[in-house]
Amino acid sequence: MDKLHIVKVGGNVIENKKIIQSFLVDFSKLRGHKILVHGGGKEASKISQKLGILVQMINGRRITDAANLEIITMLYAGKINKNIVGQLQAIQCNALGLSGADGNSFLAKKRSPKPIDFGFVGDVTKVNTSFFKILIDQGITPVCCAISHDGAGQLLNTNADTIAATLAGSMATEFEVTLSYCFEKNGVLEDIEDESSLIPKIDLKTYKSMIKKGSIHSGMLPKMENCFNALRKGVNQVRIGSPKIIKKYVPHTKIEL
Amino acid sequence: MDKLHIVKVGGNVIENKKIIQSFLVDFSKLRGHKILVHGGGKEASKISQKLGILVQMINGRRITDAANLEIITMLYAGKINKNIVGQLQAIQCNALGLSGADGNSFLAKKRSPKPIDFGFVGDVTKVNTSFFKILIDQGITPVCCAISHDGAGQLLNTNADTIAATLAGSMATEFEVTLSYCFEKNGVLEDIEDESSLIPKIDLKTYKSMIKKGSIHSGMLPKMENCFNALRKGVNQVRIGSPKIIKKYVPHTKIEL
Repeated sequence: MDKLHIVKVGGNVIENKKIIQSFLVDFSKLRGHKILVHGGGKEASKISQKLGILVQMINGRRITDAANLEIITMLYAGKINKNIVGQLQAIQCNALGLSGADGNSFLAKKRSPKPIDFGFVGDVTKVNTSFFKILIDQGITPVCCAISHDGAGQLLNTNADTIAATLAGSMATEFEVTLSYCFEKNGVLEDIEDESSLIPKIDLKTYKSMIKKGSIHSGMLPKMENCFNALRKGVNQVRIGSPKIIKKYVPHTKIEL
Repeated sequence: MDKLHIVKVGGNVIENKKIIQSFLVDFSKLRGHKILVHGGGKEASKISQKLGILVQMINGRRITDAANLEIITMLYAGKINKNIVGQLQAIQCNALGLSGADGNSFLAKKRSPKPIDFGFVGDVTKVNTSFFKILIDQGITPVCCAISHDGAGQLLNTNADTIAATLAGSMATEFEVTLSYCFEKNGVLEDIEDESSLIPKIDLKTYKSMIKKGSIHSGMLPKMENCFNALRKGVNQVRIGSPKIIKKYVPHTKIEL
């Protein structure tokens, strides 16, 4: 099987112009097929604020109402996505930006309003793998933002980690997939304040004991679930680390079943 | 040669929810290959205003500075483009939204700052026809917004009429192209206030005499130039009219050399 790199880059990395530029150069140099998935960062809240749109939170999680979905669509699928695509084109990487509506790439179901109504948030139900395969076969590098659609004209806000994991899992039937999560830390840390507490390898057993001990950070839980889901679907390799992990060996966290 | 419909829909049509919805249904029903090009409308100015960004004008034309380019990118490539794509997907039209950076579809040169510096405005130098052909051959319907790129990482604001005409001209070597400009009027009017003054046919000779008489509206001049350029490059048919022209015969303006 051909190799396929799926790289997810987080919001904090995207917001730093120098880091994202050097990351994109490294990404463009990855050999073989590749797909980039990007998060959104904190700019959405800033724009909402400037436009006088309230951002509602329940249990620390954003509610995506119509006005906020509009801003997210403008920012993720517009500004961030197109600037990444333009920068990749400048370094001879033939990138193509996608929301989940484009080419019907990510079909999703709006999350049930019970027990909590998160608004226009979607859970991916189908990845259009044949569309991604066509693009890849043409030497095109898809760049996916974290927006899906319901197939009935509604765009939906979707977690970028989940987009990457679901895509990786779906592509694993046709490719030997490596899934890399790049963010502002060196990997999963025992102590979030201490970069030297990096955990080099986490398998299901260690993961469960970490949950018991309470040593896994809340935001890291869904990320880890995504990693295990991808591995269960046949993804070859899953790792979490700094943007440098796609260039050379640097310490990071390897996830295994 | 296969037939290809290239339809450009203007800003005023886009801003009316009911009209755009019914237009998209008609567009989706067009037989054979098709590409949609859309304008932006007046929302960009509204968002600029809300965000406190000044819109500079010289001789009645907007200057696209960095802040305004950002808003245009968010609005055109983000909100407008993705909502059109989502709506087309809902009616079984497999649409794919594109800025000029995506798939390197529209390469442009930043306009010279002399005599007037219009800012980040680009004139298309190359259309990636083979990319469009690949998409079309896969049954995909490209949806293009009026943003190009310079190939060096810079997005550029580009006139949507020109995008449509240049695309049509470039595709004419491989397809029998019909180019339709759909806007809020029934076509080119002798008297802009009087819909009954519709001119059914304009050729180069009538066009020149209309310019002499001063009976052509200023905004219509570049649109007409685009039409003639497309015809010179081998486009089969060029027409200007209401969104209804793509559904059935309604009076409109036919442009001929």
